[in-house]
Amino acid sequence: MTTLLWQKPGVAVDAQIQRFLAGDDVILDREFFLHDITASTAHAEGLQHVGILSADELAALKRELAQLTEDFSTGAFVLDAQYEDCHSAIEARLTERLGDAGRKIHTGRSRNDQILVATRLWLKEKLARVAELSRDIAKVALDRASAEAMLPIPGYTHIQRAVVSSAGMWWAGWAEAFIDNAIRAHSTFALVDCNPLGTAAGYGVNLTLDREHTTQALGFARMQISPVYAQLSRGKFELAALEALGSATLDLRRIAWDLSLFTSGEYAFVALPAQYTTGSSIMPNKRNPDVIELMRATHASVAAARTEIEQLLSLPSGYHRDLQNSKPAIVHGFARGLAALELLPALLANLEWRPDKLRAAMDSGMYATDVAVEAAIAGVPFREAYQAAAAAADSAGLGRTPEGSLQVRTSPGAAADLRLDTLHMRWEALA
Amino acid sequence: MTTLLWQKPGVAVDAQIQRFLAGDDVILDREFFLHDITASTAHAEGLQHVGILSADELAALKRELAQLTEDFSTGAFVLDAQYEDCHSAIEARLTERLGDAGRKIHTGRSRNDQILVATRLWLKEKLARVAELSRDIAKVALDRASAEAMLPIPGYTHIQRAVVSSAGMWWAGWAEAFIDNAIRAHSTFALVDCNPLGTAAGYGVNLTLDREHTTQALGFARMQISPVYAQLSRGKFELAALEALGSATLDLRRIAWDLSLFTSGEYAFVALPAQYTTGSSIMPNKRNPDVIELMRATHASVAAARTEIEQLLSLPSGYHRDLQNSKPAIVHGFARGLAALELLPALLANLEWRPDKLRAAMDSGMYATDVAVEAAIAGVPFREAYQAAAAAADSAGLGRTPEGSLQVRTSPGAAADLRLDTLHMRWEALA
Amino acid sequence: MTTLLWQKPGVAVDAQIQRFLAGDDVILDREFFLHDITASTAHAEGLQHVGILSADELAALKRELAQLTEDFSTGAFVLDAQYEDCHSAIEARLTERLGDAGRKIHTGRSRNDQILVATRLWLKEKLARVAELSRDIAKVALDRASAEAMLPIPGYTHIQRAVVSSAGMWWAGWAEAFIDNAIRAHSTFALVDCNPLGTAAGYGVNLTLDREHTTQALGFARMQISPVYAQLSRGKFELAALEALGSATLDLRRIAWDLSLFTSGEYAFVALPAQYTTGSSIMPNKRNPDVIELMRATHASVAAARTEIEQLLSLPSGYHRDLQNSKPAIVHGFARGLAALELLPALLANLEWRPDKLRAAMDSGMYATDVAVEAAIAGVPFREAYQAAAAAADSAGLGRTPEGSLQVRTSPGAAADLRLDTLHMRWEALA
Amino acid sequence: MTTLLWQKPGVAVDAQIQRFLAGDDVILDREFFLHDITASTAHAEGLQHVGILSADELAALKRELAQLTEDFSTGAFVLDAQYEDCHSAIEARLTERLGDAGRKIHTGRSRNDQILVATRLWLKEKLARVAELSRDIAKVALDRASAEAMLPIPGYTHIQRAVVSSAGMWWAGWAEAFIDNAIRAHSTFALVDCNPLGTAAGYGVNLTLDREHTTQALGFARMQISPVYAQLSRGKFELAALEALGSATLDLRRIAWDLSLFTSGEYAFVALPAQYTTGSSIMPNKRNPDVIELMRATHASVAAARTEIEQLLSLPSGYHRDLQNSKPAIVHGFARGLAALELLPALLANLEWRPDKLRAAMDSGMYATDVAVEAAIAGVPFREAYQAAAAAADSAGLGRTPEGSLQVRTSPGAAADLRLDTLHMRWEALA
Repeated sequence: MTTLLWQKPGVAVDAQIQRFLAGDDVILDREFFLHDITASTAHAEGLQHVGILSADELAALKRELAQLTEDFSTGAFVLDAQYEDCHSAIEARLTERLGDAGRKIHTGRSRNDQILVATRLWLKEKLARVAELSRDIAKVALDRASAEAMLPIPGYTHIQRAVVSSAGMWWAGWAEAFIDNAIRAHSTFALVDCNPLGTAAGYGVNLTLDREHTTQALGFARMQISPVYAQLSRGKFELAALEALGSATLDLRRIAWDLSLFTSGEYAFVALPAQYTTGSSIMPNKRNPDVIELMRATHASVAAARTEIEQLLSLPSGYHRDLQNSKPAIVHGFARGLAALELLPALLANLEWRPDKLRAAMDSGMYATDVAVEAAIAGVPFREAYQAAAAAADSAGLGRTPEGSLQVRTSPGAAADLRLDTLHMRWEALA
Repeated sequence: MTTLLWQKPGVAVDAQIQRFLAGDDVILDREFFLHDITASTAHAEGLQHVGILSADELAALKRELAQLTEDFSTGAFVLDAQYEDCHSAIEARLTERLGDAGRKIHTGRSRNDQILVATRLWLKEKLARVAELSRDIAKVALDRASAEAMLPIPGYTHIQRAVVSSAGMWWAGWAEAFIDNAIRAHSTFALVDCNPLGTAAGYGVNLTLDREHTTQALGFARMQISPVYAQLSRGKFELAALEALGSATLDLRRIAWDLSLFTSGEYAFVALPAQYTTGSSIMPNKRNPDVIELMRATHASVAAARTEIEQLLSLPSGYHRDLQNSKPAIVHGFARGLAALELLPALLANLEWRPDKLRAAMDSGMYATDVAVEAAIAGVPFREAYQAAAAAADSAGLGRTPEGSLQVRTSPGAAADLRLDTLHMRWEALA
Repeated sequence: MTTLLWQKPGVAVDAQIQRFLAGDDVILDREFFLHDITASTAHAEGLQHVGILSADELAALKRELAQLTEDFSTGAFVLDAQYEDCHSAIEARLTERLGDAGRKIHTGRSRNDQILVATRLWLKEKLARVAELSRDIAKVALDRASAEAMLPIPGYTHIQRAVVSSAGMWWAGWAEAFIDNAIRAHSTFALVDCNPLGTAAGYGVNLTLDREHTTQALGFARMQISPVYAQLSRGKFELAALEALGSATLDLRRIAWDLSLFTSGEYAFVALPAQYTTGSSIMPNKRNPDVIELMRATHASVAAARTEIEQLLSLPSGYHRDLQNSKPAIVHGFARGLAALELLPALLANLEWRPDKLRAAMDSGMYATDVAVEAAIAGVPFREAYQAAAAAADSAGLGRTPEGSLQVRTSPGAAADLRLDTLHMRWEALA
Repeated sequence: MTTLLWQKPGVAVDAQIQRFLAGDDVILDREFFLHDITASTAHAEGLQHVGILSADELAALKRELAQLTEDFSTGAFVLDAQYEDCHSAIEARLTERLGDAGRKIHTGRSRNDQILVATRLWLKEKLARVAELSRDIAKVALDRASAEAMLPIPGYTHIQRAVVSSAGMWWAGWAEAFIDNAIRAHSTFALVDCNPLGTAAGYGVNLTLDREHTTQALGFARMQISPVYAQLSRGKFELAALEALGSATLDLRRIAWDLSLFTSGEYAFVALPAQYTTGSSIMPNKRNPDVIELMRATHASVAAARTEIEQLLSLPSGYHRDLQNSKPAIVHGFARGLAALELLPALLANLEWRPDKLRAAMDSGMYATDVAVEAAIAGVPFREAYQAAAAAADSAGLGRTPEGSLQVRTSPGAAADLRLDTLHMRWEALA
């Protein structure tokens, strides 16, 4: 390993302990490396504003940081276990290339605010992606709701046939769900959109850092003012981001459950293109909807990431090394969550309903509620109408069709009044 | 038990099974009973608008619903195990008093949207309370930050002495934290502030319900349009609300950790009024800060409620009885969370710093960072200045005082530039 | 409230704070009250052995403790909010009735080891119940496996039809699962079967307590030796017990999922007696399998209890008030878990298969694996046989029957060789 | 990628979807690859016993499997993304080298029982390691308990000074804790020590596999009989293993908390060798006990792995692709858990007490319990003695020493009667 920034003369370093301390940390830092460079550039500009760096030193640092960005992207520079972390790697490189200018860049900052700002930029990127994908999913759902507004499908409660429903209602439900998920990603984005750079190790420094500049240069909406709170927000903001992601993956779990049933032999309501399925090593007959199952499994990964960070955060204020473990948690959780959400728009766009199977699953009792409500409209007290309809549930479907049931489903939001225009307006407002 | 709404002739009911089905459900419904009455009133108005109820029937229903509110409040009406749930209890009472008008009130609604709207109103109330308490806590913190801006306290990282800090910085950290918690409660309030009433069992009804009226009458910001999404939001919104509460209780866990250490014999930085402590049954010498410990324990209860609901929600769309168990989870989680947050403003206002103990905990090494940064300002590259300061850390405090360290801590947000005015503006904006 | 044991003169008590400290604690203590009396009796005997109590005092204490047991059982004594906790209530009653003998009973013990021993006895009782119910469930499953060994049912992977299976295989699977659950409950029982009484507040006392006596008198297998570990086991043993319960409720969740599908309109494989179902308030046609759904929901409650305790236990060694919150968690978790497990044996015994529906769900492809393996037996390399069978999967069923498929399923544990005798021997060994 | 085992002619494969399906699966399979080869060898032997393979074919397969083991170990064979999973890789290699013998090896097995048996062997290995490390930790603790039996240290409850304690009591507590953790690892080992190989895809096969042979050859204690249960145990056994690990890491979290406080400036009870600490990038004075903090953080990783698997397991019986995600969870959880436990014995052996600091933390009130119990022994009712001692707590230490307090702490398990011989006997029984 390269020399440790903080190493003191004569203090032995134990290899097993160093491996334990490092874990996969520096490998994970590849996720945050470019963000760290971006923030380092802004920090250097700020240092020049307050006289720590000369204009020449700043220019040199910016050139080398740009070069490092390129070298990282091309693979000419590899961030690996020879470095303690991405922060040390950047400083070492700058010092190697520039000498004193490199030795100056850490003035007024700590690795504590460096990792905060790098992860903050990363979280913003990921939350924007959650919002974007939620919007894409809602769009597919809105479009299909419109196209299939009156296609009858069975409606269930308790996984038991309940009343006639429609593809339009099913799609509109997911549309409204993912519009909400996009909104939630946006409000979480706003929560974390504040700049922690310049808070050092949690107590500020005896130097008038230009935090207004770094806030603006890094595109943050505001400064995170308190250095103590900057440290308190480590983990707290990661949890908030995972919760916003989890809102989407929880809905994903439920849509995957629907599709897992709908693609079974017993339901057979939905056909999926073959590329969404896999086969068995022993059973020649199988085509399994593995994509749907791994989508259903995704929320568990997000929940696991939440658990890891939440359990860490039983700590006094201030930085503690425990918090380092929030990094693999967010990387793992977002990787899984986004990978699944990215496949969903196309899967939803490509699935095909099987109208014959849908129709075959409608039974007579599914019209009993219509019958009871009709009687209520005609003046029979509902509870009486209900009891009469219960007694005659088996014949409730006589002379009725799924289409007929849908055409009179006029309560706002129901099949005959889906209000897709309102949903579409809410969707437009997401942009 | 009173007759079950859905009971069919000749079907036996098993007492043990009924007990299992009921659980504590009807007792928990006491939390939601008044909200259910409020929503029933709006629903009745809507039914009159579409001709299901006459003006006289509506008037009678509103009178009896008002009476039931009063009887519940005075204890003249007790919601207990003789009812299946609060919904059945209300219908039974109205039918008993009014006959057919009572038998009509369930027209076009299901217990599924009834409990959705009642819990929705309840969640809004609780989230408003989280916001209000967070605002109160932030206020105490802001006030004390201002009053004690320059009171030196040790600053820690890794529970190790780091640099001189100030009470002002400590308080400002909690102020900014709880301002964020209030904002989060607000945005979650906005997320759930939509009316599910009129979505029936998740598929709407063949009756043009006046959902605009109920939305407005119940004070919702908008209609939750899709009946399918109304059902999908059961649990999802409860989770979002618990996550907003959890944001505050997680910070509470960390402030309680600080205070648990600060009130220990080894730190002794803080004195708490005696009423916040208890004694031991065997050790005559003890005064224990049990209030602080139960505050620290509170987040676990909120997390448990989250776990319960999250694990339930691995289900296809539509209502499932599993979801009933989200009720005890939110009741338990919010009861614990709010009880702890309610005590916090006074506890924070009443705690006293012990300046002698704070001062005694400052050691010489805590000035070493100041020394290194000063050298950096004077032109020594920081990494060199750091190494020099490391070699001389034990004598770094010579001629220095905590107050002196704070007076030059000029980075924005640090002791000499707390920016309480900006925090105060953000706080004002919460109102 | 009665006088607090530890109250010091002149210290004010704040009502809101006292309510927060108390929570539901004393009400929950009703669960542990009789165990506390049992342990108090053993403790008193031990005190007489070491000379703290006279024979007469011991006799009087035992008489009054027996009387209190009776009074509690009849309701003549009510444990409520006038007491701080069950421990204080017992001491107060004994002192009121007996004077100095009552004042002596707390010699050498603390409420810390009192609650440990009371909850330990309670946990043993609950774990024994988990073992017993698991054994009952396994028995029903073994019996039905034997009776229905060759009843064909479809076998699934990925919720997709895979191969022919049998009711015998399905039942044998649950039998082996619940035998393991009983074993796990037993080994957890053994783990917690150690006596913490006599460890006082976690550091022992300057009195040679007769811990051998209390260990034997309370029926513990061994003494928990270290007072420090006695405190460390608070929460740790609760978690272990919940994990043993959770092993059973996790299997319950999966069997409930099977039954939820099997009782749906699409599968219709299983009929449940009507008392396991409920109706809808709006849909006259519905009979919903709510019992199954609440069984499926049960594990979430156990998981929530685990979460609550696990999150509490980020603490240094020694007692902390946080640990009090482990009480509601175990009471809630075990109440839910056991209530569901208690209904399962009868539900399993009463469910009826619908052979026509089972048969209708068998499709031709489900014989393709048989075909491939037959070819392999005949000498065709399996991977070749597999490909041939894949190409002809649609006609694999020609001339084949479900019964025929089962009769040659001779791998050990499969339909033609269920090995119920081995499972029965393992079941017998549980007694 | 190599040809997929189950690929059907004319079915397109989508690259993004394949990446999603694969995840890190094949990379993770490196953990299980050698176990899969071991199980494949036993399976081949069984196939020869029932006539599927000739003696020559078996010999060739065993030779190539041995070669593959070597090639994997030397790096000559790399398991990477060109394979779908480790199972396909093995079959492909055998077929490439041996032709038909390779095409025969999958007869009678599925990847479902292949991964079950490979992970089962892996879990056994990991649980044995947890037991071994727990035993090592207990040994260090027992040895130091014996050596430092009467070294006084302050005893705490509520992080408040309570009574005099001893290093002997502290160490004995951890010894008993880790003896229990070893026992728990053993009983979990016994639970999972059963052979799933030969259960195929969860329904057995039409071939009389020699499962007795594979059970014995792979060193399992018994056969897992039911193919249905074999599938149900996927995840269930992983959870049990993580719970056994978690029992140890939860105690680790608490000992790390003790050490985190004991190494702070305020306590300063313990000195750690420098290699267990790291420095700061900005604060020249810092030496932080990062190893202790990452140990404290470890349980969160184990809990996260539990969460992930537990949330997956809301499924009907049978295999589902969701379960694949249990693999990264156990790999991650055990890697973190074992890495931390492996460092603990040496850390505990190397930590040094600072007797002067320990002594300075004893205050007079810590003798008040001794005073009260002495009075009780002399005949004063304890509650009276307690009140007298409370009134005089500040002077309770007059004429008393920590050593004197420990010498009369004679309750079994306390300082004067640690009963290390009994603990040592329990420890010996673990071997």
